[in-house]
Amino acid sequence: MTDFTKTKALFDIPAGVIYLDGNSLGPLPKDAPVRVASMMKNEWGQLLIGGWNKAGWIQQPTSVGDRIAKLIGAEENSVVMGDTLSIKVYQAVASALELNPDRKVILSDNGNFPTDLYMTDGLIRTLNDGHELRIVNSGDVEAAIDDTVAVLLLTEVDYRTGRKHDMKRLTEKAHAAGVLTVWDLAHSAGALPVDLSACDVDFAIGCTYKYLNGGPGAPAFIYVAPRHFEKVRPALSGWLGHETPFDFDIEYKAGSGIERMRIGTPPIIALAALESALDIWDMVNIEDVRAKSNELCDLFVKEVEARCPQLALDTPRNSEVRGSHVSFRFADGYAVMQALIARGVVGDFRAPDTMRFGFTPLYIDELDVLAAVDILEDIMTNALWNTEAFKTKLEVT
Amino acid sequence: MTDFTKTKALFDIPAGVIYLDGNSLGPLPKDAPVRVASMMKNEWGQLLIGGWNKAGWIQQPTSVGDRIAKLIGAEENSVVMGDTLSIKVYQAVASALELNPDRKVILSDNGNFPTDLYMTDGLIRTLNDGHELRIVNSGDVEAAIDDTVAVLLLTEVDYRTGRKHDMKRLTEKAHAAGVLTVWDLAHSAGALPVDLSACDVDFAIGCTYKYLNGGPGAPAFIYVAPRHFEKVRPALSGWLGHETPFDFDIEYKAGSGIERMRIGTPPIIALAALESALDIWDMVNIEDVRAKSNELCDLFVKEVEARCPQLALDTPRNSEVRGSHVSFRFADGYAVMQALIARGVVGDFRAPDTMRFGFTPLYIDELDVLAAVDILEDIMTNALWNTEAFKTKLEVT
Repeated sequence: MTDFTKTKALFDIPAGVIYLDGNSLGPLPKDAPVRVASMMKNEWGQLLIGGWNKAGWIQQPTSVGDRIAKLIGAEENSVVMGDTLSIKVYQAVASALELNPDRKVILSDNGNFPTDLYMTDGLIRTLNDGHELRIVNSGDVEAAIDDTVAVLLLTEVDYRTGRKHDMKRLTEKAHAAGVLTVWDLAHSAGALPVDLSACDVDFAIGCTYKYLNGGPGAPAFIYVAPRHFEKVRPALSGWLGHETPFDFDIEYKAGSGIERMRIGTPPIIALAALESALDIWDMVNIEDVRAKSNELCDLFVKEVEARCPQLALDTPRNSEVRGSHVSFRFADGYAVMQALIARGVVGDFRAPDTMRFGFTPLYIDELDVLAAVDILEDIMTNALWNTEAFKTKLEVT
Repeated sequence: MTDFTKTKALFDIPAGVIYLDGNSLGPLPKDAPVRVASMMKNEWGQLLIGGWNKAGWIQQPTSVGDRIAKLIGAEENSVVMGDTLSIKVYQAVASALELNPDRKVILSDNGNFPTDLYMTDGLIRTLNDGHELRIVNSGDVEAAIDDTVAVLLLTEVDYRTGRKHDMKRLTEKAHAAGVLTVWDLAHSAGALPVDLSACDVDFAIGCTYKYLNGGPGAPAFIYVAPRHFEKVRPALSGWLGHETPFDFDIEYKAGSGIERMRIGTPPIIALAALESALDIWDMVNIEDVRAKSNELCDLFVKEVEARCPQLALDTPRNSEVRGSHVSFRFADGYAVMQALIARGVVGDFRAPDTMRFGFTPLYIDELDVLAAVDILEDIMTNALWNTEAFKTKLEVT
């Protein structure tokens, strides 16, 4: 059983803050600044260029990838780190389209994060070959899977509502129709159990700065099912994905396995921060995280609905189809969220009227949830956000 | 006049090391570890998600870009940081091709760094529209510019020989033939004066981990000439290049100016390290750097040719057509370089037989050059690299 009292002590959260926005940016692992500074001094400073081999920097994208693989049910040597989630979307969708060359439709939903749609749009313009991005309502995805579709591109957990797709069922349905799948795990990795291998997923991508606590702009990851390795021709064919990058050939030859999804020189300083965060994940069972997160979300929903009737739940009540955050809609949600933040309850706001609250058991417990609801109730009851003084202050900050 | 004694004291170079590989990875600025750790503690730790606005993280790609702009003769608000150089090649070439839609040839040379060629090759495959990457010898570039060419893609300074192209003349020649230019400044930025604006360059890209000392895998940059801003449609259309990213529109609308070349969430920890390095650049005049670098290179060439006649210079003697490193060829160059490194003289080796030595006045002076040549002469004279004992050791390490 994971000891969440112990993990909570490993994060540096300011006094007086209840941090319910780990779904946007995870908090600082206490060890991370020293870890990063030591790496800079002892590896970069002392080994200089030699760090690439002597400190193992050159292998870090795959060695850290293997640590992520364990959290998402991926096979060893099937995940590699680098770049941003946006770039990884482009890589994954481009590769999936090449594996399904006779079809032209990329199917996604309006619960996908915009950058996934934007990057796909840019890829379609570049391909300039009659491809189409078909965006349906989240509830209509299953019905829209048919044999015109080349690639199904979905984010498992909706960044606004927290609605969770059924990865296993949709992937099965897709495969039955000859469709390849790309799953975005931005709100899944570190939030709930994912089993890419059991779900037979083709490609997956994700970021590490949310639930994984890797720091602002931490490197992204990409997963490719081993059965596709040798057929994938990288659209973003960078030198570190080359079979023998240090031969400096003029001709590109894709490296073996997941290595070919590497692009440029890896971000070693950022990877050091991420490794600090992953040390905490080594102490944690993701099933325990999920069970506790469900309890915390359920408690928050129950208390808010009982005490703040003005707010409308915008997240599934059933934890089976929900991620690790809860959203409430309210017309003055922006102002209410600012009032909450001013009182130390940090969630966030997504236009036009969604207040998001993330519940990450690594550093949030029942007492935090109850304290947050007390403050929310006080703000709602006294309409503190609705005063002229508060609104004036809002405009200034 | 730049005080290079002062700048030398700002770098953490291990005792006994003469570091002649800043052209591959710049050394550690002494302030950087504390700067990065403080940023992590005070910004990430204390501000959490609020860091994006309160600490200005969200503007960092352009605010740091403006610091780079000063070093490469770029207009304010025309440079943005992010990703890797490989990704920036793809962005720049894709944009340049879109601006020149009736032509199909990308012209480059065999002195370009492989990733530039690989990324272009990947782009051509993705475009799948009859484009061709035409690679000529470096000396033949000027003659190969004609009205079939859409884009001229060159690295100003050859990563092996140090040969420097004439940016101004080649750009003029290109423009006269209706060709757009993409200049890779990997071995130029921080090594020598670059004046993108005066040369009328269309696109430029570069990395910050070599002469700029930003650390392993530090973020890359891209420059777009302001005259092209509104015509450039980003192929890699990520959410932070959107006009209003926080509206979370389904439709991509390119942001204004250089902002549209942003892609995903910026690497804040890595940018903090780079800012530390750029603080040193604030104390430095790049013309002084160039003058001193030429002196150091000339001294090294003169001494090596006088004392190590087995080595063949592979770099132009004329400093006007040379970057900031010097290469010598020798059949057993790999072993010689290992012997040098074992004695604290750190250069590097590029297959099949090139030994590279970079001279960066920020932390290398005449005494270093002479001491390095003493050791090189000793190794060459006594053929230390050629003993069985040394070769056995080489295989082990």
